[in-house]
Amino acid sequence: MCELLGMSANVPTDICFSFTGLMQRGGNTGPHSDGWGITFYEGRGFRTFKDPNPSSRSRIAELVQEYPIKSCAVISHIRQANRGGVSLENTHPFTRELWGRYWTFAHNGQLTEYQSLDTGRFNPVGQTDSEKAFCWLLNQMEERFPVMPQKLEPVLEFVASCCDQLRQLGVYNMLLSDGEYVLTYCSNNLHWITRRAPFGQASLIDEDVTIDFQKETTPNDVVTVIATQPLTNDENWHKMEVGEFNMFHYGEQVYNRTL
Amino acid sequence: MCELLGMSANVPTDICFSFTGLMQRGGNTGPHSDGWGITFYEGRGFRTFKDPNPSSRSRIAELVQEYPIKSCAVISHIRQANRGGVSLENTHPFTRELWGRYWTFAHNGQLTEYQSLDTGRFNPVGQTDSEKAFCWLLNQMEERFPVMPQKLEPVLEFVASCCDQLRQLGVYNMLLSDGEYVLTYCSNNLHWITRRAPFGQASLIDEDVTIDFQKETTPNDVVTVIATQPLTNDENWHKMEVGEFNMFHYGEQVYNRTL
Repeated sequence: MCELLGMSANVPTDICFSFTGLMQRGGNTGPHSDGWGITFYEGRGFRTFKDPNPSSRSRIAELVQEYPIKSCAVISHIRQANRGGVSLENTHPFTRELWGRYWTFAHNGQLTEYQSLDTGRFNPVGQTDSEKAFCWLLNQMEERFPVMPQKLEPVLEFVASCCDQLRQLGVYNMLLSDGEYVLTYCSNNLHWITRRAPFGQASLIDEDVTIDFQKETTPNDVVTVIATQPLTNDENWHKMEVGEFNMFHYGEQVYNRTL
Repeated sequence: MCELLGMSANVPTDICFSFTGLMQRGGNTGPHSDGWGITFYEGRGFRTFKDPNPSSRSRIAELVQEYPIKSCAVISHIRQANRGGVSLENTHPFTRELWGRYWTFAHNGQLTEYQSLDTGRFNPVGQTDSEKAFCWLLNQMEERFPVMPQKLEPVLEFVASCCDQLRQLGVYNMLLSDGEYVLTYCSNNLHWITRRAPFGQASLIDEDVTIDFQKETTPNDVVTVIATQPLTNDENWHKMEVGEFNMFHYGEQVYNRTL
């Protein structure tokens, strides 16, 4: 299995604190030593740092922990390989263009009978069930909506129903973003928290680090963090339900669908 | 205008030396201070480091100079913006999937009347003439060859003819790679050199650095470097001709077409 980390914020915010906790699980406090990646959106553009090497010993992960890249939407993943070998093309997140936007995807779980999924024009490059599922999902979205609809509600309902289908094939926890929205789907394991004023302190579970968010924020900041397992031990994380689908928009939860 | 840097090698090779020279031109010895990027292929996967900030003062560029990532195909670019603002979505290289492979593209030059290019299913995300030309090129390739042909020769001839068309719209120097091949097109300014045994010394033009390639290589290594302007002052770089198209495969020049 793997671990997911996502962020949605109303002002460009760095994710150094949460990322520091997650990276420890990549071969140190956790067994996820088969690569890691993180995608930061800045406007409509993005940049991804990834490494097929364990995050707890990665020089690039060190840079990302120390160098605060500020973003309103972040998707990150550390991998414990099941389907597909340990290689760069199998390292999440995956990014593809649809409707003139870059979509970024990360998956935690394992699917069976995914080989027959029709991915249309979106060809997987690597061998993972995850990339195959992502390509299938994008193809479904494009076939249903050849042009991006003005109203987002029907798109969301459709994406949620696609995720329901993928969950029939196994464990499917997902983060998906176009840089503006962060969409989540929970199959069995996904938590989230929204931080806003009055900000307090928080301590990482995986590393002896405490942060005082009040010193790092302004009173209007709204920052949501989504993670497979809670990253701090002194805050109230919400556990998502089986089949729960959420949309976060610049930090705020703006759509929720439970089964 | 911008500067291009590419590498094709028969064994995974780092590009720290050449990249160090190029990065000085991003705001230090050169005026190209509107962002930079570099894509390393490792097998069929890739990773890209990019920054909309000047390369000569970029913390991420520092890492790339110091941390030897070994690759058989590299595409890099430093930007002096003309079409499209300074932003991450306008920062080269651009990467898209076609035929189940990731294709990476960087362009030096400026095009006019590029707005009407038909990009089909490949939608530009940013506003540059370069990304538009890349999307058009991929769409042309896919329309002409819906499935990747076994024989590459006709594809190459076709890509060269597409580049000829783009050159009609302005200045079009290009690097294009799928991780195995590095294709180049020269509109007015592109140089290359192939280094092989017996290896000698070389000194950067832009920085007081000398390297003894003999210490860094094995006798069978073949490494080709392509750059807008020569990066060293004590080696014989070949200047490409107007309309010249080349293909490099694991370090060797395997195809050449001049007008």
